Amino acid sequence: MDDAHTANIHSESDGDSGDHGDTNASDSDAQQALEVVFQPENIHRRKSSLVPSNTRPQNNRKRTNCFVHSFLDENNGEYLPNHNASYEGLAQERKVDKDPDGALDAGHQSRLLTKKQISDMAFGIRELAKRLAHIRLKMNVQHVFLLAKAHDATLIANTREVAHWLLTRDQHYKVYVEDTLEHNRVFDAEGLLASNHSFEGRLKFWTNKLCAEKPQTFDIVLALGGDGTVLYASWLFQRVVPPVLAFSLGSLGFLTKFDYDGFQNTLSRAFKEGITVSLRLRFEATVMRSQVHNGDSARDLVEQLIGEESEDNHTHKPDGTHNILNEVVVDRGPNPTMSTIELFGDDEHFTTIQADGICVSTPTGSTAYNLAAGGSLCHPDNPVVLVTAICAHTLSFRPIILPDTIVLRAGVPYDARTSSWASFDGRERVELRPGDYVTISASRFPFPSVLPLDRKSKDWVDSISRTLNWNSRQRQKSFKEWN
Amino acid sequence: MDDAHTANIHSESDGDSGDHGDTNASDSDAQQALEVVFQPENIHRRKSSLVPSNTRPQNNRKRTNCFVHSFLDENNGEYLPNHNASYEGLAQERKVDKDPDGALDAGHQSRLLTKKQISDMAFGIRELAKRLAHIRLKMNVQHVFLLAKAHDATLIANTREVAHWLLTRDQHYKVYVEDTLEHNRVFDAEGLLASNHSFEGRLKFWTNKLCAEKPQTFDIVLALGGDGTVLYASWLFQRVVPPVLAFSLGSLGFLTKFDYDGFQNTLSRAFKEGITVSLRLRFEATVMRSQVHNGDSARDLVEQLIGEESEDNHTHKPDGTHNILNEVVVDRGPNPTMSTIELFGDDEHFTTIQADGICVSTPTGSTAYNLAAGGSLCHPDNPVVLVTAICAHTLSFRPIILPDTIVLRAGVPYDARTSSWASFDGRERVELRPGDYVTISASRFPFPSVLPLDRKSKDWVDSISRTLNWNSRQRQKSFKEWN
Amino acid sequence: MDDAHTANIHSESDGDSGDHGDTNASDSDAQQALEVVFQPENIHRRKSSLVPSNTRPQNNRKRTNCFVHSFLDENNGEYLPNHNASYEGLAQERKVDKDPDGALDAGHQSRLLTKKQISDMAFGIRELAKRLAHIRLKMNVQHVFLLAKAHDATLIANTREVAHWLLTRDQHYKVYVEDTLEHNRVFDAEGLLASNHSFEGRLKFWTNKLCAEKPQTFDIVLALGGDGTVLYASWLFQRVVPPVLAFSLGSLGFLTKFDYDGFQNTLSRAFKEGITVSLRLRFEATVMRSQVHNGDSARDLVEQLIGEESEDNHTHKPDGTHNILNEVVVDRGPNPTMSTIELFGDDEHFTTIQADGICVSTPTGSTAYNLAAGGSLCHPDNPVVLVTAICAHTLSFRPIILPDTIVLRAGVPYDARTSSWASFDGRERVELRPGDYVTISASRFPFPSVLPLDRKSKDWVDSISRTLNWNSRQRQKSFKEWN
Amino acid sequence: MDDAHTANIHSESDGDSGDHGDTNASDSDAQQALEVVFQPENIHRRKSSLVPSNTRPQNNRKRTNCFVHSFLDENNGEYLPNHNASYEGLAQERKVDKDPDGALDAGHQSRLLTKKQISDMAFGIRELAKRLAHIRLKMNVQHVFLLAKAHDATLIANTREVAHWLLTRDQHYKVYVEDTLEHNRVFDAEGLLASNHSFEGRLKFWTNKLCAEKPQTFDIVLALGGDGTVLYASWLFQRVVPPVLAFSLGSLGFLTKFDYDGFQNTLSRAFKEGITVSLRLRFEATVMRSQVHNGDSARDLVEQLIGEESEDNHTHKPDGTHNILNEVVVDRGPNPTMSTIELFGDDEHFTTIQADGICVSTPTGSTAYNLAAGGSLCHPDNPVVLVTAICAHTLSFRPIILPDTIVLRAGVPYDARTSSWASFDGRERVELRPGDYVTISASRFPFPSVLPLDRKSKDWVDSISRTLNWNSRQRQKSFKEWN
Repeated sequence: MDDAHTANIHSESDGDSGDHGDTNASDSDAQQALEVVFQPENIHRRKSSLVPSNTRPQNNRKRTNCFVHSFLDENNGEYLPNHNASYEGLAQERKVDKDPDGALDAGHQSRLLTKKQISDMAFGIRELAKRLAHIRLKMNVQHVFLLAKAHDATLIANTREVAHWLLTRDQHYKVYVEDTLEHNRVFDAEGLLASNHSFEGRLKFWTNKLCAEKPQTFDIVLALGGDGTVLYASWLFQRVVPPVLAFSLGSLGFLTKFDYDGFQNTLSRAFKEGITVSLRLRFEATVMRSQVHNGDSARDLVEQLIGEESEDNHTHKPDGTHNILNEVVVDRGPNPTMSTIELFGDDEHFTTIQADGICVSTPTGSTAYNLAAGGSLCHPDNPVVLVTAICAHTLSFRPIILPDTIVLRAGVPYDARTSSWASFDGRERVELRPGDYVTISASRFPFPSVLPLDRKSKDWVDSISRTLNWNSRQRQKSFKEWN
Repeated sequence: MDDAHTANIHSESDGDSGDHGDTNASDSDAQQALEVVFQPENIHRRKSSLVPSNTRPQNNRKRTNCFVHSFLDENNGEYLPNHNASYEGLAQERKVDKDPDGALDAGHQSRLLTKKQISDMAFGIRELAKRLAHIRLKMNVQHVFLLAKAHDATLIANTREVAHWLLTRDQHYKVYVEDTLEHNRVFDAEGLLASNHSFEGRLKFWTNKLCAEKPQTFDIVLALGGDGTVLYASWLFQRVVPPVLAFSLGSLGFLTKFDYDGFQNTLSRAFKEGITVSLRLRFEATVMRSQVHNGDSARDLVEQLIGEESEDNHTHKPDGTHNILNEVVVDRGPNPTMSTIELFGDDEHFTTIQADGICVSTPTGSTAYNLAAGGSLCHPDNPVVLVTAICAHTLSFRPIILPDTIVLRAGVPYDARTSSWASFDGRERVELRPGDYVTISASRFPFPSVLPLDRKSKDWVDSISRTLNWNSRQRQKSFKEWN
Repeated sequence: MDDAHTANIHSESDGDSGDHGDTNASDSDAQQALEVVFQPENIHRRKSSLVPSNTRPQNNRKRTNCFVHSFLDENNGEYLPNHNASYEGLAQERKVDKDPDGALDAGHQSRLLTKKQISDMAFGIRELAKRLAHIRLKMNVQHVFLLAKAHDATLIANTREVAHWLLTRDQHYKVYVEDTLEHNRVFDAEGLLASNHSFEGRLKFWTNKLCAEKPQTFDIVLALGGDGTVLYASWLFQRVVPPVLAFSLGSLGFLTKFDYDGFQNTLSRAFKEGITVSLRLRFEATVMRSQVHNGDSARDLVEQLIGEESEDNHTHKPDGTHNILNEVVVDRGPNPTMSTIELFGDDEHFTTIQADGICVSTPTGSTAYNLAAGGSLCHPDNPVVLVTAICAHTLSFRPIILPDTIVLRAGVPYDARTSSWASFDGRERVELRPGDYVTISASRFPFPSVLPLDRKSKDWVDSISRTLNWNSRQRQKSFKEWN
Repeated sequence: MDDAHTANIHSESDGDSGDHGDTNASDSDAQQALEVVFQPENIHRRKSSLVPSNTRPQNNRKRTNCFVHSFLDENNGEYLPNHNASYEGLAQERKVDKDPDGALDAGHQSRLLTKKQISDMAFGIRELAKRLAHIRLKMNVQHVFLLAKAHDATLIANTREVAHWLLTRDQHYKVYVEDTLEHNRVFDAEGLLASNHSFEGRLKFWTNKLCAEKPQTFDIVLALGGDGTVLYASWLFQRVVPPVLAFSLGSLGFLTKFDYDGFQNTLSRAFKEGITVSLRLRFEATVMRSQVHNGDSARDLVEQLIGEESEDNHTHKPDGTHNILNEVVVDRGPNPTMSTIELFGDDEHFTTIQADGICVSTPTGSTAYNLAAGGSLCHPDNPVVLVTAICAHTLSFRPIILPDTIVLRAGVPYDARTSSWASFDGRERVELRPGDYVTISASRFPFPSVLPLDRKSKDWVDSISRTLNWNSRQRQKSFKEWN
């Protein structure tokens, strides 16, 4: 059997071929009880998604050093021609990253991919995540990014402590702290530099712009604080994310896996023995603004999004894309009454939800707002999206678990009496006026979370146990003694 | 890059290779920022699972004609040597099926597989399901299995109607009805045969034994009734299941996709144009009986299942295995008080649940008992297991979504005051005495459910909409008008 | 037995007597196995509640014609000396209403009553409600108040239709419509008056001010619309509320009991045969503003509200009182993060809630936001308050049913990172800054809702059945067929 | 004002007597805006409730010393003729208790009362509870009943310890322990008696029969154990219940209010200073067996219970009555499928529930099974009944709070495929075959639970705080840190 055949096995993901599956099947003898007929896949793009965005920041990155992409890059020239089609999504991403002027960029946002492309991309990330879970990555660390809330004096002192330790430990380390610390009295950059002349030129200050434009600068992110600080890291790095190792200053969280006490040992070991990374699904969410302003009373969001109108009728225009780690919430915002939200999955109109809002959560976010809204806990390895209504005002909604290859769209009907608001990882609440919607789909930029080496298989259960007060050896007090 | 390399990309699941991942990675230049180190996987089998079962029915099947296995078989000699490793699980299954004396059988029950083997097997089924979803299977139908509740006079008349139509339509068709109909007055087999001499020898009567031992006899199962009848088909076919096309006599259900009215058209089209199959995950659940009868008060289920005791101390013995389509429930049974249940996932003790019981559901079953117990709706394509407590008596449990590669064990602690009961798809309630447990893992025998050709992509949303009273064009009445 | 004895039976509620219970008890012979000792009641007022309000609108009402108060008034001079002590709360209210300058008014807001006074007042309302439920009130109707949303053309036309019918029907009727309709083209007041010269002087226009100041002007309120319109009636009539008869223009609701179609028959019968009134509990909710502005970091809301500080340290000041029919919600408002809310019941600190918010609902409101937030349905006759967390972010909250004699206080702790917002029947969202709180207690001004005469005993079940899709003769489709 | 007038005020349901209130209303001048018309109440008894029970144990009690009844008795001859009608229910009960041959007894079971009688009875208990909450009862204790699980060696030792302390403390005390302890080695009755000759004749042994027939023998019950032991006390004393003071041997519960450690101080103080009693609502639940055995396929439970058939068609017969403190559960019992249950409230058919079962809970039981099934916490003072479905299989049920004056009936429809099972406080599971039902209504025999004197007002909050892990000064860890 030759390569062509091998390729065919995964030909589902070949963009250039119209069929899906192994045509060998139809060659098979008629004496078999079955014959396989391939069906034309639904290859049209989603409607109302075609106007290119011009609002996103330019990312003129020349080349990614991200370990995820490096992992693919290292096989350059040999690996890719034969690479399993599943990785194609990531391969395309790589090309985008190399694109000198970002012109291709808008064309590759997840929301614009075909169902098949999204499916392949999600599958590729999943495969990569699976492989990463089994390996230890040894890093040649040089550029360390320190992250903490810059308004908390204790955390600033901790940041200084870590920076000092790193600068002292290895002369090749460059340490980046937030630029607001440059003249902060608690951080005392001047004093730090004066304490050891070798520190000169190795203490650097990062800006949000640097994170957005040159994320590949950093070999690792060290986050100090709680899960909120890790969410902040996700917010800073909207595209490629360096591995994030998070220290908790209180009790451990779902994303903060290491005690700050003993950070020296943790880091020494990580830099020497390598790290294990849990690659977490993020969503890409894009706000789509209705372009129909003519007050036409016949406007109908359902018709616009899944109806049979001509494709060239561009009804909506993108207005900002967010990569999120926990959840997208569309809710009533400052409005005291409930929201009416139209929910679409791929090319289907699911239902009209009347509720305080809806929460569309990643598995990582399942323990946050999703849980509060009545959703299920979800293991982060599951390739799923959790959709949960927030205080549904009808009997007709229950939390729903969907595949992560779906493209969800949640919008405000044109005849809604009020706006709704979208927020992304609990930030940046954006108003959605009647006719606007948000698309939500798997992001090409997953979030690499560093796990403790020796507890990695138990990591999730440990987290859940802490949250639910599980204790493997002591029984919970039940509501009532029965007999 | 040669084939060997391609193979390596998926070498994780290669049985013959001890490593996991692409060794190319470690070849890569040191100038890269990372180095990959493979970690020894946890390859030990689960404790307390080692006593081979001798209670399962023998399945001396010579060869499977099941379309699932046929699909692999047809590529024999060429396909398999290069087959993607993901299919190995199924390939092994195929070998087992060919095993003349079933001797290997017990050794391949899911609960005895290593974590990696289960993971590969689940993954293989998922891949197969994905491929089947995109193809139309043309069947050379000869042996049609008719299933309906044999005590319902209406359904017996329907069965006769379908049988008559089939026997009339094509002289090659053989029609199997339940053996209890042989002398049933409503069915009137004698009259049927007398009506057309060509029917002779083509009306046959199936027994439970035939389903268990020669499932490959049947090209298709036609179920008449409701979702309960489909569950009954799953119960009859504990190993390989022929494609099941289910006609509803009332409203459509989650598993009954076709109206009985117009069955002639449905069948004509299916036999001519082919069918599309949704391959549904089933669980394999095995009751494990404690063998420790010495009244030792120090017995501890947690210790026995995940402790460090010597492996050769066989504490439990299997007592019956069930392949289920919806859910396994462990509950208080006839006991008016609550149950205490120890829950384990792989080699971790999750928690001690004090509740009416727990429901471990497939995605297919998510709309049944799981939903009643407060679990989420789950798309059947998601490779997950849903664990939901039934009336938890502590604050510390929420529904949990786990990967379908997990092996769950739910047991009754030795110091429990009462037994619990296990039931399988709402049948066969079995007492679990203190010390007993049930293992639950993905089954190698998925359930092929025939979908309507023209609605297949919308099938799940249609089902959910019917259940939740969604109506895409009409708003639900909300609890309250606000303004 | 003389009156004194009768009085003693209920002497608990005698304001002028310090003891609680029947002193006969202590007279009883020592041969009895028990002796009764009365305990001093907790008579102190709640802390932080003492600064008199000066922000409430003046109500210089001379005399109430409200049927509730009339019912008591008509027995003046004879009835009251013997009136069951339970009615004292209402009797005091009556005195307040007669108070020429309202000076006593602030002193009688519920939040300033002692536990015992609130208890008596709530009990009095309950007793009155019970009596009203069993009688038909024949009204000598003269002043009819028409209420509908004035921006809805259809409703304006309906309003005109009802007004015309009333004016035609009886020359003694005076009809009040909203003042915004005076020059409304759809309503066409001029045309209406021109159509019949007898209408002159009998079509009047109400203002919000008139509702606030002279609610006793109106014999009955006819609401056209939905439940939201009835809530609007409750909002308009913050103190005494005339009986409200609500016509639905769509499907019947919890508060809209009559079909608009056939309003003529409904009204003819009501005016001729009388009406039955369901007296619904309302809450009185007062915003309390922290007066501590010295930035003292030691400020502690729990300490201020239930601590042992000196009474003359007035920490809070009232800032607006609302009588509400459905619920008070304190939530995160426009804030994308959760709220932290301290909850107090009488003089106890219950707990600190971390949630989207809390909903404190009357039984009437139990089918509105409370139900959406996971609370129970509650029969309107139950003398209870329902407290439900909205998306609690801890495991430690479940919906709670409390007696309607409790005084609840819900506040924002001084160290909260964000404000919360209070809303009243879904209106008038008010910011609560750290240190502020809301008191919620039974209102002295219940809401008289007119019920259909012939369905009154079934009214609630009818409403619930409509909401939950109950159908007494047809079974609900269950999630799953089992066998 | 004369008696006749008084009668009219409460003429709602009456009959002949009973006079509650004031007819001044109807005398009132026509110039008033309203006229009161009394409406004939629905006075028919519930259908299918008429066959007198002959299965209840005879209670030939001569006289009650129960403090509840004593409290009324002490006013004998003077008090009762003028007693507030609200007490009538209890007064009748008193007569029943004096009834020498119990002949009237069956006629006074709650289920046979009219709506008005039940309402009055419930109201009377509530009033009594309210009065008791404010007084300290000084008891002349002589007969002390000790209760503990007799199979637990530790508890037997505790029982002996308390018995010894009581016998030593006061020569007038008589101590009753369970008759199974008479020859128990751990209890060592012989040794106890030998230790002090004054104990002779003062250590007595109770039997279940004694509890059933002469509950008034005992001045107080001391329960040792947990809440289950208190439920056991409720089970033992099916009619009049002596005050129950419960000591916990572990953590305090909802019904066990006192630490066993320090029982000497607790008892000394209780006997000297008196006790405060919380009078808890109990339900009376009667199993009603269908008497229709003719296999008539037209039998319809809804028709039989609320239809218009002739009254003399006695369709059901009582088969055992239970007074319960926590809840009545009707569920699927050992059946692995769901139950179908018809639910009736008074003369209304509410709905057909398809579920694992339903839980009908008292406020006291709200923290037990009700909470596990998703019901609300409920303050024990609320005069309500909580109805909660257990794993409802439709979307159409939410927990419901009903007045405690309702008579609920929950039955199995004639066409149900399976039986359901009723259990009472988690005991005595009874099969309900198709056509059978259970009536549930407020019991005339409330349960007096002794509260700590100094914490009584905080008692419930304390209990809830323990259950929900509330901690007034320490915040709960929320699911997630937000920013």
